[in-house]
Amino acid sequence: MSIAEKTTELQGQKIVIVGGGIGGAAGALALALRGADVTLYEHHPEFKEVGAGLQIGPHGVKMLKKWGIGQRAIELGFVPENMQFRDAMTAETILTMDFGEKFLEHYGAEYLVIHRSDLLNLLVESATEAGATLVNNHHVLDGVTDGDGVKVTVKNRADNSISEVEADVLIGFDGTHSLFRKKIVDDDPVPSAYVAYRGTSSLPDDPDMAGLTSVIGYIGPRCHFIQYPLRSGELLNQVAVFQSPRYLKSLVEGTEVPEDWGNNDEFRQAFTHTHEKIQCRQKHMWLDQWWQMTDREPLDNWVVNDRIIVMGDAAHPPLQYLASGAVMAMEDSEVFALFAAEAANRGELDWGKVLREVSVERAPRCGRIQTVGRLWGELWHVDGIARHVRNELFRQAGVDNYWFHYADWLWNYDPEARAYLKDPSLGNLPKGLEDWEYNLHKLERQRKDGAQPSDLVL
Amino acid sequence: MSIAEKTTELQGQKIVIVGGGIGGAAGALALALRGADVTLYEHHPEFKEVGAGLQIGPHGVKMLKKWGIGQRAIELGFVPENMQFRDAMTAETILTMDFGEKFLEHYGAEYLVIHRSDLLNLLVESATEAGATLVNNHHVLDGVTDGDGVKVTVKNRADNSISEVEADVLIGFDGTHSLFRKKIVDDDPVPSAYVAYRGTSSLPDDPDMAGLTSVIGYIGPRCHFIQYPLRSGELLNQVAVFQSPRYLKSLVEGTEVPEDWGNNDEFRQAFTHTHEKIQCRQKHMWLDQWWQMTDREPLDNWVVNDRIIVMGDAAHPPLQYLASGAVMAMEDSEVFALFAAEAANRGELDWGKVLREVSVERAPRCGRIQTVGRLWGELWHVDGIARHVRNELFRQAGVDNYWFHYADWLWNYDPEARAYLKDPSLGNLPKGLEDWEYNLHKLERQRKDGAQPSDLVL
Repeated sequence: MSIAEKTTELQGQKIVIVGGGIGGAAGALALALRGADVTLYEHHPEFKEVGAGLQIGPHGVKMLKKWGIGQRAIELGFVPENMQFRDAMTAETILTMDFGEKFLEHYGAEYLVIHRSDLLNLLVESATEAGATLVNNHHVLDGVTDGDGVKVTVKNRADNSISEVEADVLIGFDGTHSLFRKKIVDDDPVPSAYVAYRGTSSLPDDPDMAGLTSVIGYIGPRCHFIQYPLRSGELLNQVAVFQSPRYLKSLVEGTEVPEDWGNNDEFRQAFTHTHEKIQCRQKHMWLDQWWQMTDREPLDNWVVNDRIIVMGDAAHPPLQYLASGAVMAMEDSEVFALFAAEAANRGELDWGKVLREVSVERAPRCGRIQTVGRLWGELWHVDGIARHVRNELFRQAGVDNYWFHYADWLWNYDPEARAYLKDPSLGNLPKGLEDWEYNLHKLERQRKDGAQPSDLVL
Repeated sequence: MSIAEKTTELQGQKIVIVGGGIGGAAGALALALRGADVTLYEHHPEFKEVGAGLQIGPHGVKMLKKWGIGQRAIELGFVPENMQFRDAMTAETILTMDFGEKFLEHYGAEYLVIHRSDLLNLLVESATEAGATLVNNHHVLDGVTDGDGVKVTVKNRADNSISEVEADVLIGFDGTHSLFRKKIVDDDPVPSAYVAYRGTSSLPDDPDMAGLTSVIGYIGPRCHFIQYPLRSGELLNQVAVFQSPRYLKSLVEGTEVPEDWGNNDEFRQAFTHTHEKIQCRQKHMWLDQWWQMTDREPLDNWVVNDRIIVMGDAAHPPLQYLASGAVMAMEDSEVFALFAAEAANRGELDWGKVLREVSVERAPRCGRIQTVGRLWGELWHVDGIARHVRNELFRQAGVDNYWFHYADWLWNYDPEARAYLKDPSLGNLPKGLEDWEYNLHKLERQRKDGAQPSDLVL
């Protein structure tokens, strides 16, 4: 295995990363590659990811390639021939996004699907190879600025000993329940009313699916169902997502939300209106765990102070519809490392300035990804005439790769261009969508306006 | 004024038409032009139309041209440069359908807007000139087959005298509350929950609208608003259509429908969410009358028996969204006259066969127009994400006149081709739309399934 050649711009800079998920490990790698002295703390006893498959668009694969591990990631994962959107009720393929030659030429990198654990392991190993220190079973209790640096309080969970660590900068890659985000805003996660079931199974042994080389996304009223290969085609990854009627009911009626919303009873009912091709797959899903899907409101400023910043899910937990949660964290990492290295190169390494620039570049982009993720989810789940209009729009988008037009903002991202820093309006929704309102916001607004359950317009 | 040259195929054939609206008058003209002996009875004391403007697509203008009155109709009406669909909330133009050279070439005729009275007068005068006898203030009480013909009972409303008239064939052009449709099916009108307000005003004196040369259709959540010039640009015709909250409420709750649904109180509230450009136009609408919009289920067979058939609104009252109600009646007329004349030319004038052929040719086409009219209405009135998807699909449809693709089935109709007779599946919704369900059908189905108001999914 070989990572990219190390450089030395950040030599002598001590950076603490809190959180050893995909984001933190990517941050450790990107910074260690620039010569920084990186220590990462993960509170779990081992580095591990929950879930199974992960889609990495070309915007993410480009980051992996910059770090020299793109090819290795591709070997560990699977490069699908295309992504097929299908109507969940009729199974008609309404849009095929071809990932062949034209795609590669246009986006400059592959579309990759990979097991979350495989990607995390690769990042952890690569960061270690690049010289970062990755420590697990250590819980960061706090981090505060202290003069010209940060003082970090770390508890070793093996012996409960507590130590103080000093660093120049701290990055909170500490996920959706981030300690450091709280220092900027004390907000709550926003539940989407949707829940995900997952499952992996043998692909070659699956008579209906063997030989699958596509990402398949069935989209339909109040649900969707995703299938793709993992590990060079050995595994089939499946995700079943649906709107919880019990959650929605409590939301509409203003009653208490049941803790187990999206449970197995709901799951068994959730796909009865869909095509047999989906219904017959339910038996492959894990039933002992389900993911109640939430995101948070976009955050304009990620900087706690001149020495502390949040990135990854701590800054911008999205819904999963644009498959860009992990990719955003990788982009964050590369932008941070790049901006710091460039400043150091110019002999102007002012961490406060770097952190602010990272935030100004990244917050509009990630905010847009979060917002469009919500919109994209609504688009997948519409019913009635809206579903037919959506299907027709998807069919049209397939003609001459017109869909590039919709995907470019997402997949053509170049950290070196500093595009959002130069023009933050790139983070806005495109013209015509300005007055779109997220369903759950609308519901909340109507409830606040005193609407009765039967008056609510969703 | 000159109508088309008369021919003689139907000489000696006595035809009674019941109803002197646009359909009946068109039928009288088309048949008189083939030499038939036509008598039309209209129960009103004069020939008149309610409402104001009427849009006649190229499928209708082609009929007028066949009868030699296309140019005269164009002089009486207005040929708009284009039709502009605009989002009712933002006033953005989302689709411009250009009616210029390419349109003319593609559809073979103009798009015309004309005052209903002007068109009716033109048809009545032309039918009279062609030799038809048009009688008003006469109420047809019944028509029954009698041996090799029809016996028609007619009441003269001037003196209440009743007479029996004999004819070879009777055509029930007697509108949406048709006596003759009842002989085929005893169905009820299907209310759409939408109501229309209309108004005409001086166009040159209107500072905001003077010089208008387009048909403008603002489409938005639960409402739309149409504007176009009439009478060579002297008049501005406006139509405001909205969903009645009271009607919908009674439908959802299963309570009695208030008779005055769509009244002025509702009208004043109906456009508050729309753009100022619409709101400021409300003062031009007539308030003393509003039209509760209904249609009926498509009717597979229009033939009462070998000598009696229904056509026009009696056979296929549509919602108004495809602007084809009057045009269908004109197509019916031409198809009837053509099929009869061709049979006579072959020396095989078997009226039973002609009536059945007309029904087999026309019913699938008109059924599709009725059904797509409902769908088109839903498409105009969507809210939320659906509205944005609709807007984007409309924007895409504007590229390189792609919208021809959606309009061809409607506007490229040739009676001589007998296309639906040869392939009745042309009356089906296009692929992908097979499982679309009309909102009001869905509501009814859910109520029958015992759904409570709060469970209803519209």
